Amino acid sequence: TVNGDRLWQSLMDLAEIGAYDDKRTGLRGVNRLALTDADAAGRRQVIAWMEQAGLAVRVDRMGNIYGRREGTDPTAAPVLTGSHIDSVATAGAFDGCLGVLGGIEVVRTLDERGIATRRPIEVGVFTEEEGVRFGTDMLGSAVAAGRLTLEYAHALTDRDGLTLGGELARTGFDGPADVRLAPPHAYVECHIEQGPVLAERGVEIGVVTGVQGISWQEITIHGRAAHAGTTPTRLRADAGLAAAQIVVHLRSLVDSGAYGDLRATVGHLTVHPDLTNIVPARAELTVDLRNPDDGQMARAEEALAAFLGDLEDRWPGLSLTTRRMAQTAYVPFDEGVQKVIAQAADDHGLDHVSLLSGAGHDAQEIAALCPTAMIFVRGEYDGISHNPREYSTPEACAHGVDVLATTLLRLADQ
Amino acid sequence: TVNGDRLWQSLMDLAEIGAYDDKRTGLRGVNRLALTDADAAGRRQVIAWMEQAGLAVRVDRMGNIYGRREGTDPTAAPVLTGSHIDSVATAGAFDGCLGVLGGIEVVRTLDERGIATRRPIEVGVFTEEEGVRFGTDMLGSAVAAGRLTLEYAHALTDRDGLTLGGELARTGFDGPADVRLAPPHAYVECHIEQGPVLAERGVEIGVVTGVQGISWQEITIHGRAAHAGTTPTRLRADAGLAAAQIVVHLRSLVDSGAYGDLRATVGHLTVHPDLTNIVPARAELTVDLRNPDDGQMARAEEALAAFLGDLEDRWPGLSLTTRRMAQTAYVPFDEGVQKVIAQAADDHGLDHVSLLSGAGHDAQEIAALCPTAMIFVRGEYDGISHNPREYSTPEACAHGVDVLATTLLRLADQ
Ligand SMILES: NC(=O)NCCC(=O)O
Ligand SMILES: NC(=O)NCCC(=O)O
Repeated sequence: TVNGDRLWQSLMDLAEIGAYDDKRTGLRGVNRLALTDADAAGRRQVIAWMEQAGLAVRVDRMGNIYGRREGTDPTAAPVLTGSHIDSVATAGAFDGCLGVLGGIEVVRTLDERGIATRRPIEVGVFTEEEGVRFGTDMLGSAVAAGRLTLEYAHALTDRDGLTLGGELARTGFDGPADVRLAPPHAYVECHIEQGPVLAERGVEIGVVTGVQGISWQEITIHGRAAHAGTTPTRLRADAGLAAAQIVVHLRSLVDSGAYGDLRATVGHLTVHPDLTNIVPARAELTVDLRNPDDGQMARAEEALAAFLGDLEDRWPGLSLTTRRMAQTAYVPFDEGVQKVIAQAADDHGLDHVSLLSGAGHDAQEIAALCPTAMIFVRGEYDGISHNPREYSTPEACAHGVDVLATTLLRLADQ
Repeated sequence: TVNGDRLWQSLMDLAEIGAYDDKRTGLRGVNRLALTDADAAGRRQVIAWMEQAGLAVRVDRMGNIYGRREGTDPTAAPVLTGSHIDSVATAGAFDGCLGVLGGIEVVRTLDERGIATRRPIEVGVFTEEEGVRFGTDMLGSAVAAGRLTLEYAHALTDRDGLTLGGELARTGFDGPADVRLAPPHAYVECHIEQGPVLAERGVEIGVVTGVQGISWQEITIHGRAAHAGTTPTRLRADAGLAAAQIVVHLRSLVDSGAYGDLRATVGHLTVHPDLTNIVPARAELTVDLRNPDDGQMARAEEALAAFLGDLEDRWPGLSLTTRRMAQTAYVPFDEGVQKVIAQAADDHGLDHVSLLSGAGHDAQEIAALCPTAMIFVRGEYDGISHNPREYSTPEACAHGVDVLATTLLRLADQ
């Protein structure tokens, strides 16, 4: 077993980088959007911890960081673990960080016990997993796995028009290492569940069977600015009202039950010029769809597209454009790696269930390179995440990393 | 008749102060929010024109500007005309400016003709008529008329937390003159219609019978940030979805026909943290309701309040607060002044109709002090306003100011 106190302390220390106080709830949150100054400070802290743990650190051209512990057979492909430390703007301490700091804690524990492995063990930290600054999630791992190109990633811009490539250079994380990852022997990622399943079932460990499909689109609506007092309703092309109708319609698609286990979220919504007595001329929103079934996802996307087409056809003066931000299909994880994880949980006397991930993870990208699976750790408060209330107990975190340690050991000696 | 070319030139010159190019439409718009640097530059230009026209200028503690042309009877109460030069962020050249520059043009014309009037004529420029920077419309005139206090107005803040009092001082428009206006003999305001009625009827001049009621509220919705991928729909308290439901419901109140000639606009809408994969924790929107019937307005406000109450009751984790921004009842204008305007239009050979104003105007505040009415000038493109497309022809503007001149002359000799 790993040192749970040391793991917890590192989670709490990292959470102070980019921390903020939420006035309304009195909670302390984390805001460490990818490649901001806060993220750069977090990265430097993680690299310092890696180096203290004796890892050889390299940074690639996407800013992905890898810390390597050599094996006894230097020609063997490494076992990779890791996750991300970038966060959304209203985050807690655990999302991503548990996988990175858990990986480092495993290395510290192996060192203390004088345990050598045949294969090298590497701990990866992937850039812009959240996708909320530059618009595409799992970005660093997708480029490392070759699904997206470095050029695509470097050209992405944030809301201020800053490019990812420019921000990599500004923060000093435009590393020299080749971004295309040589296939590891296996990849295992430990992460908080971010959902209610483990808590509801009273189980400690989740063995993740795969990740559901994700579809992100940005919709821009062009209407016509007009005076709120004088413009008859029939003459309005109200971009804000159209946006609201889309939001409400998406919920009705979910509630209809006709698209399987569809989830739909409009997290970003702005109107322009955004003033009390002006009918909005323009609105912009993002649509985040999730579905464990690729066929149902395609049908839901068609239903949305049909609604948008109708809206445009029926409403003189209104026009819409959509932009694809991100899209991933359902990704099944490797059954062999899942078995090693389940066995490790059994060995530690921890209950476990198999479950599908609702959130996207770097593991789904690395899965294209090597056998991959994930370990989920239980969260409190319905497993709420992307919220300062996000919380997993010190025991739950330590248990997850215990399972990670045993899993990595087994895989590294294969 | 006034000098239409000179009037037009001054409208075009003023529109260059705060001008911007709208990329999408290729139109040139005006952005001169109250007490910004652009508004201050516009004010200095107007004061320069007033002084060139021989007017004695005073600025009061609300930044309202008055230019006075003496009458032959210095003890007689003046006839007041005027409007505002602050604009919304996506404005045209005419809203408000026509009334101010029209008033100055009348004075120039009287001077050229050597015409003296018994009563003084004053041209007023009122602060923050639009209400879009500090949240309450017709603010300067409401304080001048005594409906709102100077303390209330000075303490209002913009979105950056800057106070109106501070911005008055910063721009140098915290004048020494007493803000409470001594009752004028009468007030007449010339303004673009900002609606389609005059164009639809093929008529040049509107004699305004009054202004419909205006209700502005800000609604803040508190929900719970959560992960878009992992959070089951039943566990969400989605502040953005609730906001969208309010927007859609408001339109259904209008379409129901059950609230008379109700108009409803949500011009301002934001969600927080405003990121793709986070269920919004908070949303803020403004509701602008208009109704010519105070009873129907009250019923519409009750219907909205009931909907908000229901939303809160039905939805665990969701709470709402509302803040009153502005509220004015239906204001009828003086029939005597309307008759003088109609007669003046007849004298100039211009068709006219009586109509109610859909927009709020400074005239509705000054109406509390003295007999008041307004002259409306026809607009092109359905009378669109609060949009760079806002346009009235040089002829239409000149005709309106011709009627203003004759009306002011008659009233100033009463
Ligand atoms: N784990 C996680 O929060 N990933 C971010 C990508 C997503 O929105 O699912
Ligand atoms: N005339 C005008 O645009 N007034 C602004 C106040 C309103 O929204 O009616």
